[in-house]
Amino acid sequence: VRGELPVNVKVLIEGEEEIGSPNLKPFVTENRKRLACDTIVIADSSQFQADVPAITYGLKGLSYLELIVRGPSVDLHSGSFGGSIANPANVLAEMIAACTKGGRVAIPGFYDDVKPLEAWEREEWAKLDFSEQAYLDGIGARAAFGEPGYTTLERRWGRPTLDVNGLYSGFTGQGAKTVLPAEARAKLSMRLVPDQSSRKITELATRYLRSIAPATVSVEVLDHHGGEPVLVSREGKAMAAAANALEAAFGRAPVFIREGGSIPVVHTFKAELRADSLLLGLGLPDDGAHSPNERFRIRDFHRGAHMMATLLDELAR
Amino acid sequence: VRGELPVNVKVLIEGEEEIGSPNLKPFVTENRKRLACDTIVIADSSQFQADVPAITYGLKGLSYLELIVRGPSVDLHSGSFGGSIANPANVLAEMIAACTKGGRVAIPGFYDDVKPLEAWEREEWAKLDFSEQAYLDGIGARAAFGEPGYTTLERRWGRPTLDVNGLYSGFTGQGAKTVLPAEARAKLSMRLVPDQSSRKITELATRYLRSIAPATVSVEVLDHHGGEPVLVSREGKAMAAAANALEAAFGRAPVFIREGGSIPVVHTFKAELRADSLLLGLGLPDDGAHSPNERFRIRDFHRGAHMMATLLDELAR
Repeated sequence: VRGELPVNVKVLIEGEEEIGSPNLKPFVTENRKRLACDTIVIADSSQFQADVPAITYGLKGLSYLELIVRGPSVDLHSGSFGGSIANPANVLAEMIAACTKGGRVAIPGFYDDVKPLEAWEREEWAKLDFSEQAYLDGIGARAAFGEPGYTTLERRWGRPTLDVNGLYSGFTGQGAKTVLPAEARAKLSMRLVPDQSSRKITELATRYLRSIAPATVSVEVLDHHGGEPVLVSREGKAMAAAANALEAAFGRAPVFIREGGSIPVVHTFKAELRADSLLLGLGLPDDGAHSPNERFRIRDFHRGAHMMATLLDELAR
Repeated sequence: VRGELPVNVKVLIEGEEEIGSPNLKPFVTENRKRLACDTIVIADSSQFQADVPAITYGLKGLSYLELIVRGPSVDLHSGSFGGSIANPANVLAEMIAACTKGGRVAIPGFYDDVKPLEAWEREEWAKLDFSEQAYLDGIGARAAFGEPGYTTLERRWGRPTLDVNGLYSGFTGQGAKTVLPAEARAKLSMRLVPDQSSRKITELATRYLRSIAPATVSVEVLDHHGGEPVLVSREGKAMAAAANALEAAFGRAPVFIREGGSIPVVHTFKAELRADSLLLGLGLPDDGAHSPNERFRIRDFHRGAHMMATLLDELAR
């Protein structure tokens, strides 16, 4: 439009976010001076719903573990040996079941550092045009479920969770095979909210899992990766500039939301560069993130260009 | 030795035993006359331990189910959606955990038809030269575990059990992936003792699993296959002939044991041909049945030939 940019722009491309960004943090630390900036803009977030732009001011953190329960040295005949020793798959199931209770996480101390939702957040989220039934229909789920005392949006955005991400043991093919498995594995992750610490929650969960492991099996807990939860202030000039830019592109003011996903680099940028991040992604809830056939709407690609151009102007002002 | 057999011999070869013998029962029923006989000899059992021959007079039955828990229509991002709906893998773990309690099966009615162990069985088994530590070392297990109030041999041979044979859900590769799985599956089998009925136990287990399934997911229970438990009388001429034949081959009298595995055709033969089976297999507990690198000792192959020749003579007498 103008032939030159109204502010300096540095571009940082990250390709390891889904495996915990093992190289990004050291890179940012080593290049603190080159990366120095006033404001960071990240595109990895979503509209509240189609054509309702959003500024994401909160992200969950993550603790990702793998629980391995080992019994006999090889898979055994379940008839000849069943009933005489602990079955690692049964033990794994019991240990997973002991991690939650009635929609809450049952790991002692898990909620100790959770910052309660603010009254104004709960009020604003309650006003959002969110149909729980349409949400459930969209993902094909029969019912909502989770921590009692919170709405579905509150649980997704503002409350910590524990989910099994994968299970693997014994015979997994079609039909039947009568083995007593040598080993059973679960991928187990917890999404964290401010002011929980990923390191502390990983320690609490690991200690808890070890404490409930029966002596009849051997239990290993692998620490896959983690990330810290984030809350960004809704005040300040950069935030106002972002709101104006979104309004220019969409023809309506953005809503302020949080997100259940994790972007650990937001925390890294804050710690290393002392700069806040603007989360201005234009994804949609039904884009199929992390699923087969993921997409991004062309219409929102054009809006994104409009928003970014406006944002640079707004920040220059 | 003699140039002719002292009794008539009919040979029946079964190749589908591990998948529940779907064709054998109809075959036996249709060929009842051709198969008519006084005594049946089956080789699918074991010595009590190396060089201690055994006659197996009891076998467990089987009910084999697959439990499928379905949630959202596809795997979802566990950050964006976690905490808002039930996770099928967590639900599966809870349902499995609810199937056992302290080494006992927790399905209501499961023990109703169990025939208690006889006093003489418990006495004779207690006299057997069985080292629990050597047994555990052999299979690489840390400890014995199972139903309270019974010895390890009693649990293996004479008490019903429930084992997970396989688990499968979500992400099962190396490392981490943050999905909320669409589906979780468990292979689940129960070993039965007289007078439990495979059909009845399958029904009880299916009804129980449906009753504990939360309304937040959909649950399917597949019936893979089953078989009836068996007890053979230790009395009679055929049993005495078998004992003599084993003694001739091994130079010592056999012990009388039961087995935790299942040979459903024993029940079929009894029902259709009205003949008892002699279980005279010469396998060893550490042959690795159903495991990689299964074996059969050559020495026992030769003893088996000796035993079978003697048995035909004994039966003819």
